[in-house]
Amino acid sequence: MGNLLVVGSMAFDTVRTPFGEANDVLGGSATYFSTSASFFTDVDLIAVVGEDFPEEHLTFLRERGINLAGLERRDGKTFRWKGEYTYQLNEAQTLETHLNVLETFRPKIPEAYCDPNMLFLGNIDPDLQMDVLNKVTRPSIVACDTMNFWIDGKRDALWKVLEKIDILIINDGEARALGEDPNLVQVAKQILSKGPKHLIIKRGEYGVLMFTGKQVFGAPAFPLEQVKDPTGAGDTFAGGFMGYLASTGDLTDEGLRRAIIYGSVMASFNVEAFSLDRLRHLDRKEIDDRFREFKRLTHFDDLS
Amino acid sequence: MGNLLVVGSMAFDTVRTPFGEANDVLGGSATYFSTSASFFTDVDLIAVVGEDFPEEHLTFLRERGINLAGLERRDGKTFRWKGEYTYQLNEAQTLETHLNVLETFRPKIPEAYCDPNMLFLGNIDPDLQMDVLNKVTRPSIVACDTMNFWIDGKRDALWKVLEKIDILIINDGEARALGEDPNLVQVAKQILSKGPKHLIIKRGEYGVLMFTGKQVFGAPAFPLEQVKDPTGAGDTFAGGFMGYLASTGDLTDEGLRRAIIYGSVMASFNVEAFSLDRLRHLDRKEIDDRFREFKRLTHFDDLS
Repeated sequence: MGNLLVVGSMAFDTVRTPFGEANDVLGGSATYFSTSASFFTDVDLIAVVGEDFPEEHLTFLRERGINLAGLERRDGKTFRWKGEYTYQLNEAQTLETHLNVLETFRPKIPEAYCDPNMLFLGNIDPDLQMDVLNKVTRPSIVACDTMNFWIDGKRDALWKVLEKIDILIINDGEARALGEDPNLVQVAKQILSKGPKHLIIKRGEYGVLMFTGKQVFGAPAFPLEQVKDPTGAGDTFAGGFMGYLASTGDLTDEGLRRAIIYGSVMASFNVEAFSLDRLRHLDRKEIDDRFREFKRLTHFDDLS
Repeated sequence: MGNLLVVGSMAFDTVRTPFGEANDVLGGSATYFSTSASFFTDVDLIAVVGEDFPEEHLTFLRERGINLAGLERRDGKTFRWKGEYTYQLNEAQTLETHLNVLETFRPKIPEAYCDPNMLFLGNIDPDLQMDVLNKVTRPSIVACDTMNFWIDGKRDALWKVLEKIDILIINDGEARALGEDPNLVQVAKQILSKGPKHLIIKRGEYGVLMFTGKQVFGAPAFPLEQVKDPTGAGDTFAGGFMGYLASTGDLTDEGLRRAIIYGSVMASFNVEAFSLDRLRHLDRKEIDDRFREFKRLTHFDDLS
């Protein structure tokens, strides 16, 4: 049995929020996901960077126990994203996107990655997601993210991927666009009828919902005194969620609910600083302490 | 010891949502509040209506055990509100407001109401809220609602009221406007330093937060397959919350948390139909069943 495998992007981000800015800092879905997951389990990473990607970032990832055998370094520049947040921190406004080496990315899967226990298909072209899925032995759990660009532009290819996965992890705007319905319960019914066993809807500062058959689990986001930069919160959530699941192997409803809270905990730390800076100085005790605070946040007594 | 006393508006609402419309139907903050609270406790109501207000609405309220001794009927027309919701159901767009008899409303408090156990100051002019507060023996709990119109236009008068109350119940936009800060944790700190012991922030389809000192309680809204009309959800929440508190007298943190869930349950029923139509056909068993579903919605196992 292998590890948790993630395919996604690595990037340089330039981000402006009302609380500061950061230029050409480490970012990307695979970066946030794998760093977050690395607090719980071993991670195998597939991504591409350009010749401008500095060794120090790779050293950071390696020191977190992330396997970079699947990281391709190519001629050209690394993917760059520039975005801005207003006080309405829930949604970024993209100012610039330079795909660079990501434009012609075709994920190659090292021999050692071919039998993953769990797989996370980060937000890339659905055709590439399908390609990865076809090249590995079917993992016990496959989860997937996407974005409106693919929902609008590659709907059929995306649905083909969704038919083959276990867990779809998207935000509420994406869910409404994919289900073509404003009501999330109706959207969940529709998506779950096509294949995924679980639909996880990320709502940023409002928390998260998980739909499983007719069951729903809902959790608020952890209320924070200061949110500096929401970039990567969704991928950090997914990394904590999948990492915790991989570490326990507990795929019961209770196990998934706890994984949702661990994902929320990781996201709540990540938004406290720019880039992955908060995750660089985080330990398992802080994580478990915040899990307990989450319990206190949401607990109420049952009817007797 | 007296009852739960509410002062607020009674209205005819004309509402359009993507799922239908309703013309000149029963509405108003005191109406929603008292009907919701009446499932848990006895309610004394103070409000004003015009000569156009039909007997059938009064009969409905009386049959729910609501005391109308403080309902004033005056020459002129009842307050009228006309609003519209898009698929983004969280916020109404007001199309018309006709204050009518509400314009010169000065709450009169019948002798029998002068020693209330609990008091809810619905969303009216802060000067009138203060007037009511001064005319009754201090209840064990005073809660208060307001709106941006008063936050912007009568800020000083409003703060004077807030210094004297126990619980402020407002939505997130109002909280940010009152605290002049986008961060709700910072807003809560500031508001709680001025007097109220609890700040309850309603977030519509995203649920509710309650701040008490450094403690926070958060609950998602109940996910519904169909939301027909969000009008009155906030007042229905407040009515369920205060009504349940009045019925138990349990003002511990645990008691308040359960009251928040009962408020959320009542609001979740109310939005399933236009006006108060869902509350007209509701019984305590349905309420308790949904409370249990709320527990199932939010529960996860603690760390062992």
